[in-house]
Amino acid sequence: MSRRYVVFAPGAFGGRNAKTAHGVIAYSRDAVVVVVDPQHAGKRVRDVVPYLDSDAPIVATVLESLRFEPTSLLIGIAPPGGALPPAYRAEIAFALQSKLEVVNGLHAFLNDDVEMRALAEKHDSRIWDLRMPPAAPLFSGAAYDITSRIVLTVGSDCAVGKMTAALELTRAAQHAGTPAEFVPTGQTGIAIAGWGTSVDRVIADFASGASEQLVLEGDRRIAARDGILFVEGQGGIAHPGYAPVTLALLYGCAPDALILVHLVTRTTVDGYDIPLPGYRALIRTYEGLCANVKPARVIAVALNTYGLDEAAARAAIAQAREQTGLPCDDLLRFGPGALYAAIAGQIGKTPVRTNG
Amino acid sequence: MSRRYVVFAPGAFGGRNAKTAHGVIAYSRDAVVVVVDPQHAGKRVRDVVPYLDSDAPIVATVLESLRFEPTSLLIGIAPPGGALPPAYRAEIAFALQSKLEVVNGLHAFLNDDVEMRALAEKHDSRIWDLRMPPAAPLFSGAAYDITSRIVLTVGSDCAVGKMTAALELTRAAQHAGTPAEFVPTGQTGIAIAGWGTSVDRVIADFASGASEQLVLEGDRRIAARDGILFVEGQGGIAHPGYAPVTLALLYGCAPDALILVHLVTRTTVDGYDIPLPGYRALIRTYEGLCANVKPARVIAVALNTYGLDEAAARAAIAQAREQTGLPCDDLLRFGPGALYAAIAGQIGKTPVRTNG
Repeated sequence: MSRRYVVFAPGAFGGRNAKTAHGVIAYSRDAVVVVVDPQHAGKRVRDVVPYLDSDAPIVATVLESLRFEPTSLLIGIAPPGGALPPAYRAEIAFALQSKLEVVNGLHAFLNDDVEMRALAEKHDSRIWDLRMPPAAPLFSGAAYDITSRIVLTVGSDCAVGKMTAALELTRAAQHAGTPAEFVPTGQTGIAIAGWGTSVDRVIADFASGASEQLVLEGDRRIAARDGILFVEGQGGIAHPGYAPVTLALLYGCAPDALILVHLVTRTTVDGYDIPLPGYRALIRTYEGLCANVKPARVIAVALNTYGLDEAAARAAIAQAREQTGLPCDDLLRFGPGALYAAIAGQIGKTPVRTNG
Repeated sequence: MSRRYVVFAPGAFGGRNAKTAHGVIAYSRDAVVVVVDPQHAGKRVRDVVPYLDSDAPIVATVLESLRFEPTSLLIGIAPPGGALPPAYRAEIAFALQSKLEVVNGLHAFLNDDVEMRALAEKHDSRIWDLRMPPAAPLFSGAAYDITSRIVLTVGSDCAVGKMTAALELTRAAQHAGTPAEFVPTGQTGIAIAGWGTSVDRVIADFASGASEQLVLEGDRRIAARDGILFVEGQGGIAHPGYAPVTLALLYGCAPDALILVHLVTRTTVDGYDIPLPGYRALIRTYEGLCANVKPARVIAVALNTYGLDEAAARAAIAQAREQTGLPCDDLLRFGPGALYAAIAGQIGKTPVRTNG
């Protein structure tokens, strides 16, 4: 099914809580034909979010969006905690009554919402809860036998650009003729790629196992024996709330190499007055944890220089290169080709530690 | 309610999958009046598990157990993955029909099992699913303001004695006149203490938040402003499957100090051919992670020397002391008093890192 999305992000489209919306506009093969946000009604997407290459119109209500003939409504916000803001209920109910598919990335499942479920059944509309997890097994170690090379993006923090880095590197590898797959691990990645598991939604005991299942599935999807899986990381190892999910991916995906992603303007852990570790401390932490089970090195830094002018961006990139000794670039600002070319030769398979 | 337990562990009572059974026998204030395990029928508890100070009889069936007038049946096994072995269904159904409360520590909830739920309702018997998680919020940082001192047991691996160490140190502190509470974080601890949350069962995004709620609740329960909470750790930071839960507790409980727990005979990660890190590497990993958010030091090593003779146990303890420079003892073999006395003066409050 090819979707035509109305992205629903009232009062939020310009801000970072709309990251699901922005990610789908930037990377989904499905078209985003209209956005709902009364705060920006009358403008176009790129007027509000300049880096998004889209002139889709912004309207004030779901009713107004219908003349653009959407097939699906994407709840385009990701508030911390993932609850459905009560003010959204009426508009989402109207979308279901209008026979739109509703694509929901919140922790709160609409299929579990008695009213929404009844509306969907009555009007034969569909609810796709992106975060609904499959039954996951415990981690088995099967990921250690995958022949695809596994590259995981790891962050200095949450919401710094790990998904974007994985998507851009996947494109660059494919462009260079190397079979590559993006492995989605969160709601936005799932909406973009059409498969995947929101690992943050899995029961903690099974989060590593769910991560392992994702790379096994990526390995089945890839068209070659030694292609590359670029796995979207989650959270950050220094984040007191989200680090368990970060670690589930770090161990469960059994990466062969890591890409460190950092938003240059971020200096404290998102939501806390706790300073972020520097590049070298982060690299030491991530590599030290991997060394416990299957060694993996950080082979590059993907910097997000959003908000800086070009001179400041180049200075930040140079500084990261100097401090880490690693290839470093902003994949959105300067494209992923150069960084991919710099690391392509260094992505090998590393074996698990064994007791032999 | 004061329970009289029949512990149900057919074919398993002597092994490590019966750790829930062993923990409740050793530490619960509720009485264990009989055990069901046809493999050991006719013996007594201490004949099979010598370190358990109990002469409760072992019988072959739940029917036979009824003459000891139990009020409750404890499913006394903890298999990896936590599913209910199908062979157990008939006996558990019979227990519900016999109006026994069924206390269940498996991941598989009996309250979600249509047949078991119907039996419980029909016979007015109760099902207590120990692992049923409460709705947990995201981690908030409220744990950073707790006035109780927070001590977390961290392991070299799963199933090495973290709960036992926390229970023994709680007793030792209370014996020394210091207000102390044990904070249960897993199904066995919950069965013993009558409260708590099985953090491994919480949705991964909320596992740190659930851990934080547990120390907040412990702080409310403690009878003094500067008492000590001894939090039961889970898993191990080098375990590819369980480490996310370990990290949720490490960050979410905001510990002021850590106790490293190790089973001397364990050399590889439980279930994997991956060598365990040594003492110093483990201490570096745990302290390094804590340093990201709220610094905490490992202040002692609680060694589990089960299976060694006394001379070998003393040698292992001496070696751990030498390698770590920390107080070290086996709390079961030699009692917790000496180790507690050695560390009591070192348990202070440490502040969270701030950006000031």
